[in-house]
Amino acid sequence: MVTIRVILLEPLYGGNIGSVARVMMNFGFRDLVLVNPPVIGDEARTFASNPNAIDFLESATVVGSFEEAIHDSNLVVGTTSKMGETENRHVRMPAYSPKALKAKFDGKKGNVSLVFGREDRGLSSNELSRCDIIAVIPTSASYPVMNISHAVAIFLYELQDLSPGQYPLADRYNKDLLYEHIHEFLHKIPYPQHKLEKTALMIKRILGRAELTGREVQTLRGVLKRTERAIKEGRESER
Amino acid sequence: MVTIRVILLEPLYGGNIGSVARVMMNFGFRDLVLVNPPVIGDEARTFASNPNAIDFLESATVVGSFEEAIHDSNLVVGTTSKMGETENRHVRMPAYSPKALKAKFDGKKGNVSLVFGREDRGLSSNELSRCDIIAVIPTSASYPVMNISHAVAIFLYELQDLSPGQYPLADRYNKDLLYEHIHEFLHKIPYPQHKLEKTALMIKRILGRAELTGREVQTLRGVLKRTERAIKEGRESER
Repeated sequence: MVTIRVILLEPLYGGNIGSVARVMMNFGFRDLVLVNPPVIGDEARTFASNPNAIDFLESATVVGSFEEAIHDSNLVVGTTSKMGETENRHVRMPAYSPKALKAKFDGKKGNVSLVFGREDRGLSSNELSRCDIIAVIPTSASYPVMNISHAVAIFLYELQDLSPGQYPLADRYNKDLLYEHIHEFLHKIPYPQHKLEKTALMIKRILGRAELTGREVQTLRGVLKRTERAIKEGRESER
Repeated sequence: MVTIRVILLEPLYGGNIGSVARVMMNFGFRDLVLVNPPVIGDEARTFASNPNAIDFLESATVVGSFEEAIHDSNLVVGTTSKMGETENRHVRMPAYSPKALKAKFDGKKGNVSLVFGREDRGLSSNELSRCDIIAVIPTSASYPVMNISHAVAIFLYELQDLSPGQYPLADRYNKDLLYEHIHEFLHKIPYPQHKLEKTALMIKRILGRAELTGREVQTLRGVLKRTERAIKEGRESER
């Protein structure tokens, strides 16, 4: 079974944090992590509304960095209201709808973090690039920017009854090692420097949506190591 | 194509009204009716957030009664966070999920009103009994009461891209005449008085979810009239 963590990255307004706590309770979710939030005050408690939701709000985990929030997540989903543009498309694309996430997580096993950015400017490109996959709620093109608690409501509504399963998602630590490995690898081959970062991110997006198991991550790293050895030795292996 | 109206019945807080206006804009809906709302002030405008959403909020139709709000609706959907109990089950049951409403409205034609009750006590039994069908968002049993704007968000998210169609829903006026006719009819047959109101409501719920066309409504009224005539004449018709 996939368990869902909601991460609010540097939320600005207590009212929204309280609203998020309330809607998490509505849909039975209990893992809220706040990255550098404002002090939780009366406004947040008012919006949480129900005494249990207020308790839950006050017991939310508070951390000082994005890395701390996601360190034990098998898969990190960055949410955005902006669809990708050509310029930096691998940062924001391909984007999954809440329904597609539901289909993706049914029958899997692991910890998934849903990350919501600041109310005024969302997640930065750098933060999005640290996510495995990107998700966007289909909205009207003329005013796509939703209130953060509305966005959380819709994701949790879709993800509230995921089917259990045993397909184990790779852990964050080994996946990050793989991503770093790929990045280093691109430096070792004659790859155009100006394309390198984009390609590394593109590969990350491909692997992110492939829902790798731990075994697959190890196998891919093995392939990279053996390829590096072949490059170093300057020859193809004898068959 | 079904067009959706959002009706807030005696909403208490401007912030929620503004939030509802914002999420309607997010999903491209443009028909908001407020029944006896508070004065639209700064709080409502703050929560609407976007200038277009503020304009939209300020142009919402304000009426003084539920009847005025629904008079031109082919189908009225009452929303509730409480599932039906045995006592008055026809008031609250059967309840449709947002996904089931989407399936129901795809390919139809007419005006549908989604009615949301007061933040503190929702819609009364009497108000629910005036709705054709009832809808409920599946939530955690331990804290099912959602913020009103979150509930609107989830319904509109599901209903944002209904398939067009030509199946015409019967108009409110003729459907109300049919319902009244059924009610009167039950008085004309030897029906236990203490069951009469419940049964009338049960029949309304059955017909409500059957999505009658205008022609079907006329036919049913014709059947009732001919039945009444047969009763009056005290005999079965000759075959």
